[in-house]
Amino acid sequence: MNWKSLSAAWWLVGAAVTASPAAETPSIEYALVIHGGARGSLGGSSEEEKKAQEKSLEQALSIGLKILANGGEALDAVEQTILHLENDPLFNAGRGAVYNSEGGHELDASLMDGRTRACGAVAGVTTVKNPIGLARLVMTKTRHVLLAGAGAERFADEMHVERVENSYFDTPQRREDWRRVQQDQKAAEDSTKGTVGCVALDRRGNLAAGTSTGGLTNKKFGRVGDSPIIGAGTYAQNSTCGVSCTGTGEEFIRNAVAYQISARMQFGHATLADAVEQVVQHTLRRGDGGVIAIDHRGRMSMQFNTPGMARGWADSTGKFQAWSH
Amino acid sequence: MNWKSLSAAWWLVGAAVTASPAAETPSIEYALVIHGGARGSLGGSSEEEKKAQEKSLEQALSIGLKILANGGEALDAVEQTILHLENDPLFNAGRGAVYNSEGGHELDASLMDGRTRACGAVAGVTTVKNPIGLARLVMTKTRHVLLAGAGAERFADEMHVERVENSYFDTPQRREDWRRVQQDQKAAEDSTKGTVGCVALDRRGNLAAGTSTGGLTNKKFGRVGDSPIIGAGTYAQNSTCGVSCTGTGEEFIRNAVAYQISARMQFGHATLADAVEQVVQHTLRRGDGGVIAIDHRGRMSMQFNTPGMARGWADSTGKFQAWSH
Repeated sequence: MNWKSLSAAWWLVGAAVTASPAAETPSIEYALVIHGGARGSLGGSSEEEKKAQEKSLEQALSIGLKILANGGEALDAVEQTILHLENDPLFNAGRGAVYNSEGGHELDASLMDGRTRACGAVAGVTTVKNPIGLARLVMTKTRHVLLAGAGAERFADEMHVERVENSYFDTPQRREDWRRVQQDQKAAEDSTKGTVGCVALDRRGNLAAGTSTGGLTNKKFGRVGDSPIIGAGTYAQNSTCGVSCTGTGEEFIRNAVAYQISARMQFGHATLADAVEQVVQHTLRRGDGGVIAIDHRGRMSMQFNTPGMARGWADSTGKFQAWSH
Repeated sequence: MNWKSLSAAWWLVGAAVTASPAAETPSIEYALVIHGGARGSLGGSSEEEKKAQEKSLEQALSIGLKILANGGEALDAVEQTILHLENDPLFNAGRGAVYNSEGGHELDASLMDGRTRACGAVAGVTTVKNPIGLARLVMTKTRHVLLAGAGAERFADEMHVERVENSYFDTPQRREDWRRVQQDQKAAEDSTKGTVGCVALDRRGNLAAGTSTGGLTNKKFGRVGDSPIIGAGTYAQNSTCGVSCTGTGEEFIRNAVAYQISARMQFGHATLADAVEQVVQHTLRRGDGGVIAIDHRGRMSMQFNTPGMARGWADSTGKFQAWSH
C-alpha cells in the first residue's frame, strides 16, 4: 500500500488523533512524551508486532516517568527512556537499526538540556551500543557539540562506553526491508521513517529532548540525517519547549524543524500546539514525518503527516498511553 | 593580547563599524557580502599580511560581483567566491586550513539555495581540494543534505572532483598556530575563528549562502562545527534572508544562529539589521564570532562580537569595500 494514494481522510484522522490537549491540563508537575518513528505505511505489521511495540513504548514511558516522579532530572529521563528503545530491536535505533547501502549500520543520536542549551551529538557510529549515552558524554566531557564517524568511535574508546560488533545491530526484519528497498527504491519511501525520541519536563521546570536513529534504509554511506543535528531533529529551551523529530531527515534539516517550533513560540508568540501544527501540517510536506514536543508548562503535542507514528505520552496527572501507529 | 581584556569601547566600535546600511539602499539589483573569518585578536598580523588579505577579499568580491552583474545565479556567485577563498592560503578554508589535534586537516562546507531551500554539505573531508564544490554536488546529485567523513570522500570518488594529498592544505602559519595552541590551550581562544563565507542576491531576487572552513585549531578528530550545519552556519530563504556565520561553531549550533536570523524576520517581523544585531550582540556571547547576511531587498549586514572579522561587501549601486579585520 502506498500511503501517497491514501485519501485526505487519513490525513485528517492523523491530525485529529494527535491534537494537543492544551485546554485540559491546568497544572502539570512533570511530563514525558516519546516516539518510535513515523511510519510510511500502516501495512506490513501483524497485530502481534503492533502489540509488542505498544508494550515496549509503555515500558519506555514507565522508565522515564519513574525518574521524573522521583524528582529526577529531565535529561536523565530522556537518556534512560531512549536507552530502552535503542536496546529494543523493534525500533530503528541501536539494536534493530536499518541497513545502509553497504549492508552495515551507522547510528546517530543527540540530546539537549533546555536549562543551559548544552547539547551533544554523535553521527555515524558503528560499534557503540548506546549512541544516546555517547551523545551525552560529548555534551559533558568535551567542548564540542557533534563528533562524527571515526572521531566519535575514538572518543568512545576514551570514554570506555559499552562496545559491540556492528553485527549486533542486525535483525532479520531490517535485513528484509533492506533487500526490498534495494530491489525497489520506491519501497524506501513506504518504509519506516525510523528514529526514536523523547522529551521530558521535570519537577524543577527543566526541559530536555533527545533523538536516536539508524537512519534511512539503504542510505548512502556517510549520510547524516536530522537526528544528530541540534535544531533539526532535537531542540530544548526552558522558556519555550523541547522537541524531537522523526521522518525524512533532509526536510527536517532544511526547515530547522525542532528549532523552528521553538522560534515560532519565542518570536511569533504561538502556542506549542499551533507551532507544531504549522510546521508539521504546512511547512513540511505530507509524508515527511512527525514531531513530539512539550512546552514549559507541561502541555504536550504529538503530530505527524505520515499514515502513522509510534508514540506515547504520560504525565503527573495520570495520563499514560502509547500507540504503535 | 587577549581580547577578553579589551575595554567595552572596542566592543562598541566593532558594532558601529558594521551597522547595517538599511536606510541608504533604496533599489538594489544584486548584492554580495563575504567574510574571511572572525578574529579572536587584532594582533599577530603584519600590515603586509592585512593588505594581502584585503586584496584577496577584493578579488573574491570581484569574482562574485561579475557573475551577478552578468545576470548569473546567486548560487554560482557564492560557489565561485568561496572557491577563491578556499584556494587562498591566507584563509582557514581549503588551502590554509588549520590543523586538528592530530596534525591533519578536516574540512567542512555547506551551501543553500534560498529559492527552493535545496542545500548540501560535507563534513570532515580530507582530500577534496574544494569542499564547497562537493557540497553543491551533494545538493544536486543526491537525495541527502549532509555527507560526512569517509562517506563524503567516497562520494567525491564517484563525482571525480579534484583531489589532493592532505598535506596540500599545510601552511607554515597554521602549523605555527597549532604548535602554539598545543602548548597553551588559551591561545586557541585568541586564534582565528576561521571560516570563509558568502551570501549573494541575484537580479532575479534569489538568495544563496555558503560557508567553508578548516574548523578550530587543534580540534578533536571528528569534531563537526557549525559550517556544514544548515541552520547553524548557513541559511538562505528568499522570503527573508541569506546568512553565513563564523566563530565558535558550538555556540552557533546551540543557538541555530543562521536560521534564527531568518526566523526573527519571518515570525517576529524584525528587519535584517535588528535580527542580526539581536543574535550577534545579545543571544551570542562576546567573542563567539560574527555573521554576514543579505535580505530579500539587498540590504546587507555584517556584525561581529570579536575584536575583528575579515569581510567585504559590494552591490549594484557601486558599493565595494573589504576589511581585513
